[in-house]
Amino acid sequence: MSTVLNNFSNDTICAIATAMSDAGIGIIRVSGKDAVSICDKIYISANKEHTLIKHVPNSIRFGYICDDSKIIDEVMISYMKAPHSYTKEDVIEINSHGGMLVMNEILQLLLKNGCRLAEPGEFTKRAFLNGRIDLTKAEAIMDVIRAQNNFALESSRSQLQGKVYSKIKELREKILYQMAFIESALDDPENYDLTGFPEKLRGIIESVNSEISFLINTADEGKIRKDGIKTVIVGKPNAGKSSLLNTLTGDERAIVTDIAGTTRDIIEETVRLGDIVLHVIDTAGIRNTDDVIEKIGVDKAKSKVSEADLVLYILDSTSALDDEDKQIIDLCKDKKTIVLLNKNDLSDNIKITEDILRMQFSEIKTDKLPVISTSMLKGNGIQELKEAVADLFLNGDIVPKQELYITNLRHKALLKEAYDSLMLVIDSIDKKLSEDFYNVDLTNAYAALGEIIGEEVGDDLVEEIFSKFCMGK
Amino acid sequence: MSTVLNNFSNDTICAIATAMSDAGIGIIRVSGKDAVSICDKIYISANKEHTLIKHVPNSIRFGYICDDSKIIDEVMISYMKAPHSYTKEDVIEINSHGGMLVMNEILQLLLKNGCRLAEPGEFTKRAFLNGRIDLTKAEAIMDVIRAQNNFALESSRSQLQGKVYSKIKELREKILYQMAFIESALDDPENYDLTGFPEKLRGIIESVNSEISFLINTADEGKIRKDGIKTVIVGKPNAGKSSLLNTLTGDERAIVTDIAGTTRDIIEETVRLGDIVLHVIDTAGIRNTDDVIEKIGVDKAKSKVSEADLVLYILDSTSALDDEDKQIIDLCKDKKTIVLLNKNDLSDNIKITEDILRMQFSEIKTDKLPVISTSMLKGNGIQELKEAVADLFLNGDIVPKQELYITNLRHKALLKEAYDSLMLVIDSIDKKLSEDFYNVDLTNAYAALGEIIGEEVGDDLVEEIFSKFCMGK
Repeated sequence: MSTVLNNFSNDTICAIATAMSDAGIGIIRVSGKDAVSICDKIYISANKEHTLIKHVPNSIRFGYICDDSKIIDEVMISYMKAPHSYTKEDVIEINSHGGMLVMNEILQLLLKNGCRLAEPGEFTKRAFLNGRIDLTKAEAIMDVIRAQNNFALESSRSQLQGKVYSKIKELREKILYQMAFIESALDDPENYDLTGFPEKLRGIIESVNSEISFLINTADEGKIRKDGIKTVIVGKPNAGKSSLLNTLTGDERAIVTDIAGTTRDIIEETVRLGDIVLHVIDTAGIRNTDDVIEKIGVDKAKSKVSEADLVLYILDSTSALDDEDKQIIDLCKDKKTIVLLNKNDLSDNIKITEDILRMQFSEIKTDKLPVISTSMLKGNGIQELKEAVADLFLNGDIVPKQELYITNLRHKALLKEAYDSLMLVIDSIDKKLSEDFYNVDLTNAYAALGEIIGEEVGDDLVEEIFSKFCMGK
Repeated sequence: MSTVLNNFSNDTICAIATAMSDAGIGIIRVSGKDAVSICDKIYISANKEHTLIKHVPNSIRFGYICDDSKIIDEVMISYMKAPHSYTKEDVIEINSHGGMLVMNEILQLLLKNGCRLAEPGEFTKRAFLNGRIDLTKAEAIMDVIRAQNNFALESSRSQLQGKVYSKIKELREKILYQMAFIESALDDPENYDLTGFPEKLRGIIESVNSEISFLINTADEGKIRKDGIKTVIVGKPNAGKSSLLNTLTGDERAIVTDIAGTTRDIIEETVRLGDIVLHVIDTAGIRNTDDVIEKIGVDKAKSKVSEADLVLYILDSTSALDDEDKQIIDLCKDKKTIVLLNKNDLSDNIKITEDILRMQFSEIKTDKLPVISTSMLKGNGIQELKEAVADLFLNGDIVPKQELYITNLRHKALLKEAYDSLMLVIDSIDKKLSEDFYNVDLTNAYAALGEIIGEEVGDDLVEEIFSKFCMGK
């Protein structure tokens, strides 16, 4: 554990841990050495006594929160004794009526009696600093809570259960063993022989790095699966942009927006293709004025395209290509693009075929270009679109295949750092440099991996990570 | 207790009891005879055993929710054994990560294993049907949760603590005693003498009815204090309508709208004058376009005024009354109105005085007309406005004075019913009708009061009351 422990606060903290909205039940959480004594000042049992101090650990009791003689609320109060609690400190959870006003009164009462308002994530930060969980598990807790689709939930759950931690620990141990061997050999050359060691080490490092490289490679796919794909729909007026969006959103839209917090300050429409999420950029208000997207001409499309990971270019296949189309095609030059040749139901009147289109694109674009024949009117082509997206972003796998995905950008960056340090080791070995020279790089790789799980981590990073948590967690 | 008990369900029910929004903690509540056995199917303890069945009542334990061998979430699980629980049934509360997806997975798992999704309010309905709480306490629970100001919280809290229940019970007992005496006298005239009884009864009924009347009178004030006053601001362009609204909202507005659920589908701006709430009608969007309210002319004002309980009429006192003002004055005819003579800072140039104004109003309006001199520029006159509102709506008391307020319209209507029945009793006594004649009215009054606390109440009413509850309560 790092120096952060030295700065660790002795305060007893409190916060509302359930959502900030009226509901049946609300929970106000208290943690710290004075949790029991502070709560006992404001809690009386059913027979009107201050007896929290006598509660058995892991018990839950009915009683009242009181401000002097005034009853504030009927509550259930539970007590988890240190170190067998979320934070490894004494923890009290007050299970009150879930109205904002009454929860807030209880919170104010705790503050008045000696608690400090917890910072976002401070309970989990204490769980980490007190050694109950490593940093990947702490991060996974917020990811579980914020998961917006099954993949995000599954991957964060597996991280919470320690899969990332175990993997990183295993890699670190392999490196540590080599570091230890080099140290020993340099200290005690009589008993440790470094003959042939560099070649052996090279093999081990290559194998570790291929594992790291595999993890890094899961990160891009993991990010896409977890966070979705920034998408922009382009095409001339009446090509079918609105219909495409309507087809994509369909009934699924309700599922996404039923989750509170996703609807405020919308700057994108979130749609699902099975478990793949597309964020259609900057179409705020599109629901109210159905033709807003139709009005996005080439100029406006330009800036949208630059922000996007994916361009869905929809054309009316019954209307010949013109200059405007050529301008749009030019926009797609550097972007992953899927072309939808729409209105295939009007088969008598097709003016643009896949061949014609590919010819146009071939001048400016050499990478993969899926072209799908669709009819938004009949809802054709959505399965093909899903497969094309999986093909462009997910190695063709609509369903996740790996057992472990790296979904956290911090982890990815540190894996990359470790990878680069280990490549330097290989380079040094190939250049026949001495062991003490590349031992520095081994140490760097070891430290970078350690930072992932929080074993080599500074105060500022800890602050930064937990500040992104929600209140009460 | 009524016949509703006969229809009482044997199902084990479950619901998410915390707010439907991602948060640190979520609670899924289970109640019913199979609560323990169903939860034991999906719960394993920290040492991976299905041991919920062995848990001590009122204990809280760490463990995992599992779908077969797959871990769904780490949870704390608490167990309250019948009859010592919220519903008087076996209750399990699963304290999980507060993400919508993960809470929903746990809920689905409970449903798959034999729970039924609880209807809104069904936990509290069971608490009522199982005799733990009366109907006024049950209603108070939702009022505590939904309280939007201190008065609403205080009055529902006092109702939850049984003040309404005790009062109604006391009144019923007085009536019951008289009913019993009459029954006894009619059955056994030799031992019970009814001579002089009607006069004595008259006195008792008058005293009971004066108490009922007092309670009914608290209801209007109670409703205003709890729910606020529908208010419309009228006045000519540039009189200061926007400034008035801005002054009223000030910093307080944030407090109101910080409470989730109050901001969706706004059709009114909620402002506070201390603890008095004004709902300024149909000013949606006023924040974005500051001059919307300025644009409401006489025609539009007309329909707004008809919906309002209170009209705030603001005039620029430096500009003489004209025809438009006269039209506005006419609108205020049948409404409680407060006049704000604005721009009193420009004292050199006053063209409308209180006297001039009262003269105009005197032709059409005879009731109380507060006229306040204000300067929205300097923020003058808000305290006077508060006092004027209290004077018009709250018998002049800014701070609530009664110990008990009736805030529920159902209670008020039933009190009125009891009052009317008792008046019939007095009428019958005055007409010297026989005891068995007015005993019917006594019984009706007794029943009406019984309906308030839920002792004489049909299935349909119970359904209606609890259907307004939130999920999970």
